[in-house]
Amino acid sequence: MSSSPVPTIELTADLRLREVDEPHSLVAHFGPDEALRLDVGVDLAPFTIAYQTYGQLNGAKSNAVLICHALTGDQHVANVHPVTGKDGWWETMVGPGKPIDTERYFIICANVIGGCMGTTGPASLHPATGRPWGLDLPMITIRDMVRAQAMLIDRLGIDQLFAVVGGSMGGMQVLQWAALFPERVFAAMPIATAARHSSQNIAFHEVGRQAVMADPEWRQGRYFDHSIRPHKGLAVARMAAHITYLSDEALHRKFGRKLQDRAAPTFSFDADFQIESYLRHQGSSFVERFDANSYLYLTRAMDYFDLAADYGGVLANAFKGTRTRFCVISFTSDWLFATSESRAIVHALNAGGASVSFVEVETDKGHDAFLLDEPELFDCSRGFLDSAARARGLV
Amino acid sequence: MSSSPVPTIELTADLRLREVDEPHSLVAHFGPDEALRLDVGVDLAPFTIAYQTYGQLNGAKSNAVLICHALTGDQHVANVHPVTGKDGWWETMVGPGKPIDTERYFIICANVIGGCMGTTGPASLHPATGRPWGLDLPMITIRDMVRAQAMLIDRLGIDQLFAVVGGSMGGMQVLQWAALFPERVFAAMPIATAARHSSQNIAFHEVGRQAVMADPEWRQGRYFDHSIRPHKGLAVARMAAHITYLSDEALHRKFGRKLQDRAAPTFSFDADFQIESYLRHQGSSFVERFDANSYLYLTRAMDYFDLAADYGGVLANAFKGTRTRFCVISFTSDWLFATSESRAIVHALNAGGASVSFVEVETDKGHDAFLLDEPELFDCSRGFLDSAARARGLV
Repeated sequence: MSSSPVPTIELTADLRLREVDEPHSLVAHFGPDEALRLDVGVDLAPFTIAYQTYGQLNGAKSNAVLICHALTGDQHVANVHPVTGKDGWWETMVGPGKPIDTERYFIICANVIGGCMGTTGPASLHPATGRPWGLDLPMITIRDMVRAQAMLIDRLGIDQLFAVVGGSMGGMQVLQWAALFPERVFAAMPIATAARHSSQNIAFHEVGRQAVMADPEWRQGRYFDHSIRPHKGLAVARMAAHITYLSDEALHRKFGRKLQDRAAPTFSFDADFQIESYLRHQGSSFVERFDANSYLYLTRAMDYFDLAADYGGVLANAFKGTRTRFCVISFTSDWLFATSESRAIVHALNAGGASVSFVEVETDKGHDAFLLDEPELFDCSRGFLDSAARARGLV
Repeated sequence: MSSSPVPTIELTADLRLREVDEPHSLVAHFGPDEALRLDVGVDLAPFTIAYQTYGQLNGAKSNAVLICHALTGDQHVANVHPVTGKDGWWETMVGPGKPIDTERYFIICANVIGGCMGTTGPASLHPATGRPWGLDLPMITIRDMVRAQAMLIDRLGIDQLFAVVGGSMGGMQVLQWAALFPERVFAAMPIATAARHSSQNIAFHEVGRQAVMADPEWRQGRYFDHSIRPHKGLAVARMAAHITYLSDEALHRKFGRKLQDRAAPTFSFDADFQIESYLRHQGSSFVERFDANSYLYLTRAMDYFDLAADYGGVLANAFKGTRTRFCVISFTSDWLFATSESRAIVHALNAGGASVSFVEVETDKGHDAFLLDEPELFDCSRGFLDSAARARGLV
């Protein structure tokens, strides 16, 4: 169960590192005999998964909903974040009476493999050396994340998930779950995602990685040996990425060319414009809670994601004969994971004979819309899950 | 006149610095009594403008075309570049028989104030100190660039330009020319541009500046004192910017998810994907020819550009009663300077009573389309200039 709200605490590198090894979460340890076979062909063992749960598992264990988090998200979906002191990242969607209703469902969210909030990742201690893995951690894929989650679900004694839900990188995991374990997924809701990472998105990720690696404090990924962290590079990476999460319209509406706390431009390199100080804040607050190497691993996992490639290049084959029911959701102003990507998923699902509904939500909020107050998102999520719950006999 | 083609030469920081002070170009020096009054209220004197010309000025001095270059362009429009050894950046548009025909027109292109190819900029020597200006150079605006160009045009004895033409930041200068000196501009062709820099575009520029400034080799802009240069930061800035010059479609067509010289992904942080090695190349080749401080100044000039703000917030007032004829051109897949920005210019020109034609070129090449082989761009540029030439009595 989720811990009760924790107070805001002062952020330090030490604190964040404690969260890596002693997370404010439930923890599942997998021993040397329970290896996670990674796509690169290496066994990861031992390893740890940190996770949060909300609500109660019913006696039939048929009401479990797995939420898959996005690139810079974590397991703290609907509780105060132990490091930032802020609300959980999906409190709009998850809670009592919310579309993913904690009074009806048993909700699980696990920090992904490669993450930095308690699940084994590059900041975790390498069992052989007692030092953080750093870049010695094998490369992680979306499928590895899903296989690890499946081991957690096994550990919890759950055969079939009622639903798997997630946006962005979380949506990639939803698709991978449905493809890899069709019998274990009753309903799937991939949001603002794609079945393969596009060239433009790889390009933006590569810029972010190069920004991190260009920071001399990165030290080839071994910054922890020097008690330093590549703050500046990671902040630049976050700033660049953050632009891609928004939309031109939303930026125009929110910031336009408004100046920050001044009547006239200073004609300098200060943050004259509100959008500049907003972006700088996004960069500097991110580095307090996120590990730079983890950012490298998780962006890379998304880049390598190409679900069709595992099925002879035909996406429909990934879903052939599936009995999972799908609800695919995209947002009109999302240019990072455009509606055309969701449409490709829907076409493949149709070709695979799946039951699928598709909603393109009208919004100007860009990719971030899946995290924000979007009534149409809530309505269609609720409608889909209600209908699936009836089909599953959960009512 | 343009110098004859120069051979490829080995790139060194020294060489580039020589181009700052002893450019392979024509040079106009403006002495202490010929100050450029900058928008920040400071007089810049002495200063220098480096420029190229092509074709012959006719006896009536009525066939001069001023080309305004973009952010990372320079005066080498249609001759081999003295540093890179590559073709001029607009050889597709400028040359014998080309839309901007060197057999009919006298074509001028000047490196902008703030640039690094011979016109006074942050890499130029500060006359008082004998060291480069660095960040002691006052902030430059688009209007400052245009005022400096007007002084050059005066020096050349030209009262009225037959045409002012440019794309992107060059297009901003075109609009500024038409607003500031309507009687001196017979025809104006702003391409892929905007009358004010958007919030999203400021955001991308800010990421680039932060990438440069995060590089410890930047040394608060005084890297030249240490014989170093912030290569890594500037390369990251260029990589991020370069994505915005292309389109998702063009990237997909050109690169997709193709791997670079390998059959299978390496599962590493190497440049596995072609798009990654392409971007890295864009970054590393750019830093060989461009000054990092110049990049800061010129991006900032674009950010501050808001033509309507100088005219009571009403863009139409900038063009009220103008006799200049305009041709506004945009590209369907340009998301950096979208067609909506061009449409806003056209509406203001219409409201100001100007003669204006507007073409949205269908292309998937993104913002960069104005530099590329786009037959529709060539056709409509030629048509517009031919018609204007007849009206000007140039035939």
